[in-house]
Amino acid sequence: MPRARDETVIAAFADVLAGLRRARGLTQEALAHEAGIDRTFVGLLETGKRQPTLSVLFALAGALGVKPEKLVADTRSRAAG
Amino acid sequence: MPRARDETVIAAFADVLAGLRRARGLTQEALAHEAGIDRTFVGLLETGKRQPTLSVLFALAGALGVKPEKLVADTRSRAAG
Repeated sequence: MPRARDETVIAAFADVLAGLRRARGLTQEALAHEAGIDRTFVGLLETGKRQPTLSVLFALAGALGVKPEKLVADTRSRAAG
Repeated sequence: MPRARDETVIAAFADVLAGLRRARGLTQEALAHEAGIDRTFVGLLETGKRQPTLSVLFALAGALGVKPEKLVADTRSRAAG
């Protein structure tokens, strides 16, 4: 079974996603719609209950108007604390 | 259902992963061991049959000795073609 969940990384991503979404004045619903993903899934990502796949990561980055590697770089530095 | 698979992104990641692994002279088995993931999963990633979660992305980057955002940036530019 692949390494399922890196809790530090997932928690860091949750904060990064919520921060970028709020900075753009988007609701979870608006972000989900823009990214073509399920409304409740954004909530699950922002509470660390779920983690994104590569495809979802690219979709969220597109919706937020950032490069996907920025989401990952911000997550890495936040996870490093 | 979240956007499940972005085939272009997944295919690009498959190439990026295989390229970086070979450049380091690692077998799929060695990379899987280093990343703490299942041996067959590296093969599935490199053939685009599966895609990484954020946790697996970080684990693979660590095993390859690169930052996770490099895997994503290389994937993005390769997907852009």
